[in-house]
Amino acid sequence: MKIENNNELIKLGERIDQLYENGIKVIQHPDVFCFSLDAILLYQFANPKRSPNAQIVDFCAGNGAVGLFLSAKTKGQITGIEIQPRLAEMAERSVLLNDLSERMQVLTLDLNNSTDYLAKDSIDYITCNPPYFAVDATSQKNPNEYLAIARHELLINLEQILKASSQLLKTGGKLAMIHRPERLGEIFALMNHYQLAPKRVQLVYPKANKDANMVLVEAIKQGKPGVKFLPPLIVYQPNNEYTKQVAEMIYGK
Amino acid sequence: MKIENNNELIKLGERIDQLYENGIKVIQHPDVFCFSLDAILLYQFANPKRSPNAQIVDFCAGNGAVGLFLSAKTKGQITGIEIQPRLAEMAERSVLLNDLSERMQVLTLDLNNSTDYLAKDSIDYITCNPPYFAVDATSQKNPNEYLAIARHELLINLEQILKASSQLLKTGGKLAMIHRPERLGEIFALMNHYQLAPKRVQLVYPKANKDANMVLVEAIKQGKPGVKFLPPLIVYQPNNEYTKQVAEMIYGK
Repeated sequence: MKIENNNELIKLGERIDQLYENGIKVIQHPDVFCFSLDAILLYQFANPKRSPNAQIVDFCAGNGAVGLFLSAKTKGQITGIEIQPRLAEMAERSVLLNDLSERMQVLTLDLNNSTDYLAKDSIDYITCNPPYFAVDATSQKNPNEYLAIARHELLINLEQILKASSQLLKTGGKLAMIHRPERLGEIFALMNHYQLAPKRVQLVYPKANKDANMVLVEAIKQGKPGVKFLPPLIVYQPNNEYTKQVAEMIYGK
Repeated sequence: MKIENNNELIKLGERIDQLYENGIKVIQHPDVFCFSLDAILLYQFANPKRSPNAQIVDFCAGNGAVGLFLSAKTKGQITGIEIQPRLAEMAERSVLLNDLSERMQVLTLDLNNSTDYLAKDSIDYITCNPPYFAVDATSQKNPNEYLAIARHELLINLEQILKASSQLLKTGGKLAMIHRPERLGEIFALMNHYQLAPKRVQLVYPKANKDANMVLVEAIKQGKPGVKFLPPLIVYQPNNEYTKQVAEMIYGK
C-alpha cells in the first residue's frame, strides 16, 4: 500500500492507500477510519453478479473500501451506505479518485431507513463489514467516537442489518458478511428468522494453530438450507509473515 | 490397528482392532459396525471430568468405541447407550476384553427412554457420534440395516439427542458431539432451545484446501453464550498421508 500526500482530493491528516491486487485507491485517516484486512477478506469472499445491471449495496461502508474494491469484480451499480457523514464524505472522494462516479454512489444514511432510498426486493448483492461487538453497560468502547461507532453496535446491530438486507434483496439475492465467530450461532438464528439461508461459511484463523478470529458468511434470500464450510483461511505463517493466500489478496499474484 | 482372531470373546466374522494411542481394543465386524476416524476425533475432542465419581454417558454407542476410548481419559463411570442389541452386545464383550466391567456398562436402550434408567440432572459428560443424515422419502439408505440405522436418522434424530442430553446433564455438565458441518445451523438452534450453550467448535477438513466435512461441538448445559472456534483440524496431507496431528491420535506420539 503506497502513500501519496499530494492529491487535491485529500485533506489534512489523510493518506491514500492502494490495494495492489486490484489497483483501487482508498482515502484513509488514522483518527477517522482506515480499512483493515477484514475489508480485503470480505471483498475476496464476495461473489457479486458481474453484469452492468447488477445492483450491489455495501452496508456499513465506512470509508468505502469494500464497495470500491468490488468495482474490480463487477460492472454493476454499487451503493455504499454509511451513517457517519465524515466517513461517507471520504468514501465519496475515493469514488472520484478512482473515476467511479458513473457506477458508484455513497448515501449518508442510517441503514434502517435504506428502503426510503432503495426499492425493496431490488438488490442482487449486499456486503457488510459491520460493528462486531454487542454493547452493554460494561462494554469498553473506543474513546474515539468514529472508531467506537465502527466497532460497537452503538448505532446499528446485527439484527437490524439482517432485517434491512432481507428487505432490500431480491429472492435469490445474496448477502456477504464478515463477523466474529463467537456470534455465528446468533448470525445463523437471525438469518433464519429473516429468510436468509447461509450457504457459504469460511472461518479465518490468525495462524494454523490458533482459534478462529473472523468468519465470512454468505446467505441467499429464500434459499434452500444446506451450508458449506469452505477451506480454512489462515492469515499468518509461523514466522509471522502473511500466508501466500493472504499475500496474494493484498499484493496480487 | 492390529487384528487378533484368536480371542474367545469374538464371534465369526469379527476382529479386534486396537487404538495404539491409548491401547484400547474394540471388537469390530465389517457387516455390523466398525468405528471410524469420527470416533477417534470425538474421543480426542472430549474433555470429561477425570475423577472416579464422574458420570459419563456415550449416546449412540455403536460397538462402544468412544466410551471405551474415554476410559483412558477418566477414572469415572461410563455408560454406553445403544439401541441395536447386536451392537450393544459387541460393546459389552469389548468392556470385558479391556477389563473395564467395574466402571463401564452398556445399556441396550432407546435413548429417548434414558431417564427411565439414569437420573435426570445426574450426568457430568455426554459424548455422541450420532447418525448424520436426516431422512426423507428420497433418502438413499444403506441396504445393510445395522449401518443404515447408524448413519441415518431412522430411530433417533438430532433434536431427540439434544433433548435427552439436556435432561440427563447436570447444570454445567457438557455434551461433546461430532456431526456434519451442513447441520451446524440446526445444531446451534436446537442446542439453544434445549439450554445447551455451544462453547467449543472445531471444524474438520479432509485436506487444507477442501471444504470441512465434519464438525466437533461441545456445549454446556445452562452455560453462558460465547463460542470459540478451535484451530482447524486437517486430516490428510497433500500426499494423502495423515497429518502429524491425526497420525498421533491414532498411533500415539
